Amino acid sequence: MRLATIRTATGHRAVRVDDTTAVETGDADVRALLERPDWAAHAAAAAGPTHDVAGLDYAPLVPSPEKIVCVGLNYRDHVLEMGNEMPEYPTLFGKYAPALVGAHDDIVLPEASDKVDWEAELTVVIGTPVRHADRAQAEAAIAGYTVLNDVSVRDFQRRTGQFLQGKTFEHSTPLGPWLVTPDELPEGGWEISTTLDGETVQHSSTSELVFGAVDLVVYLSAILTLNPGDVIATGTPGGVGHARTPPRYLTDGAELVTSIAGVGELRNTCRKEKR
Amino acid sequence: MRLATIRTATGHRAVRVDDTTAVETGDADVRALLERPDWAAHAAAAAGPTHDVAGLDYAPLVPSPEKIVCVGLNYRDHVLEMGNEMPEYPTLFGKYAPALVGAHDDIVLPEASDKVDWEAELTVVIGTPVRHADRAQAEAAIAGYTVLNDVSVRDFQRRTGQFLQGKTFEHSTPLGPWLVTPDELPEGGWEISTTLDGETVQHSSTSELVFGAVDLVVYLSAILTLNPGDVIATGTPGGVGHARTPPRYLTDGAELVTSIAGVGELRNTCRKEKR
Repeated sequence: MRLATIRTATGHRAVRVDDTTAVETGDADVRALLERPDWAAHAAAAAGPTHDVAGLDYAPLVPSPEKIVCVGLNYRDHVLEMGNEMPEYPTLFGKYAPALVGAHDDIVLPEASDKVDWEAELTVVIGTPVRHADRAQAEAAIAGYTVLNDVSVRDFQRRTGQFLQGKTFEHSTPLGPWLVTPDELPEGGWEISTTLDGETVQHSSTSELVFGAVDLVVYLSAILTLNPGDVIATGTPGGVGHARTPPRYLTDGAELVTSIAGVGELRNTCRKEKR
Repeated sequence: MRLATIRTATGHRAVRVDDTTAVETGDADVRALLERPDWAAHAAAAAGPTHDVAGLDYAPLVPSPEKIVCVGLNYRDHVLEMGNEMPEYPTLFGKYAPALVGAHDDIVLPEASDKVDWEAELTVVIGTPVRHADRAQAEAAIAGYTVLNDVSVRDFQRRTGQFLQGKTFEHSTPLGPWLVTPDELPEGGWEISTTLDGETVQHSSTSELVFGAVDLVVYLSAILTLNPGDVIATGTPGGVGHARTPPRYLTDGAELVTSIAGVGELRNTCRKEKR
């Protein structure tokens, strides 16, 4: 089952996305849907107004999550290419809701920087409140998987030791287009890639993750309660622009495509902020 | 004017706190109140059910902010005592809503650590959406000031380069008891202190802030929109336990009092997590 938040003439709606038709579930967005204890049965039985999938206007999958947790340094290939040791603990930082955009929205390149970079990330969406989870509870708490590009403003990210300010620029971070429930996904690693103006700039497999989805839910739930609609972006593989020689960054008009096989694809145009 | 979120038998309520009586404003909490464009007039005119101030059960001032932004290394005295250079940019990191507790609630010391520390912080609450603010707009966007103790789990904070995981443990962070609107506060520095079982462990003045409230609103609003109910904890002065020789941490039963003269006082008992 695939679930999305779409924009309609009268506001956001949660929908179940079938092959050619999307069906409204009666909820304002995917977070409100996931806050129903019976969300899966409710979405499966949805029979609200329908929309042609080809014409959907995707909002950020979860427009206002309680938490957006990001993970750094979490792909083996990327850790090794950077000459780092395998981490003992996940590197965690945050991002705020105004950073999010929909799957086909423009990414805003801030006026304040010309060092904006891409980071394709497999992303977990929580479906059940969970605290002090064991692995089985963590797995059961995952509503599904989606795609996020943790677009990063590298000069702001490095202004201090804490990454947050480079990670949360307004309208920088596409999230969606939908979540796919785990039962619809194959076991094992999924191909993950970024293309920039048609050129592949990141290409790896989620089998390279140091801390996988279940590991991260176990780890985070030992710190605090994860709640429905919470978003955990699991980190990015090698191939970011900042690590290239010479460095390469996003520019006005660039077309960024972020894909995870079986999960989904983001297609966004970068637009320089105009004030 | 002082505004708070209280717990009642039928849920949270925003109240205006007068000398001996608190008056309900008709809003579910202070965020909902501040989301009214006319919040100040609305709160001033509030005439809902009343409560004896002495008996109030304070919820976190904003139970579910869109953003909790924390600032590190922001007191001149603390920067100098640590042998650091004055920072060019504020160090920013996040915290999530489940970390918050009310002004008189227990602080939970997690089972996973015995290195939990205190950090008294003057805290800004946003009252008006603001983006790309100049100093006048930033000042106008501040609804008021409150008190937060950015209780920090030092071993988790230092597990990686990113502080977040040590800063967001469940029920670690008191916020309140109320916000005080700027018109009720004197110009200039306000005395800030922490006492632990009656002993003063932090004592400074907010005049030592490197980046003041208006500076921080200007800086953050250049990154993203600040919204009503957003919380900005401006950093802590010297005197934290982790920097002592030998280090000193919070223990089960410890009484932590966090005060900012003219703003308010948090009184919390530390309790070791029981599972």
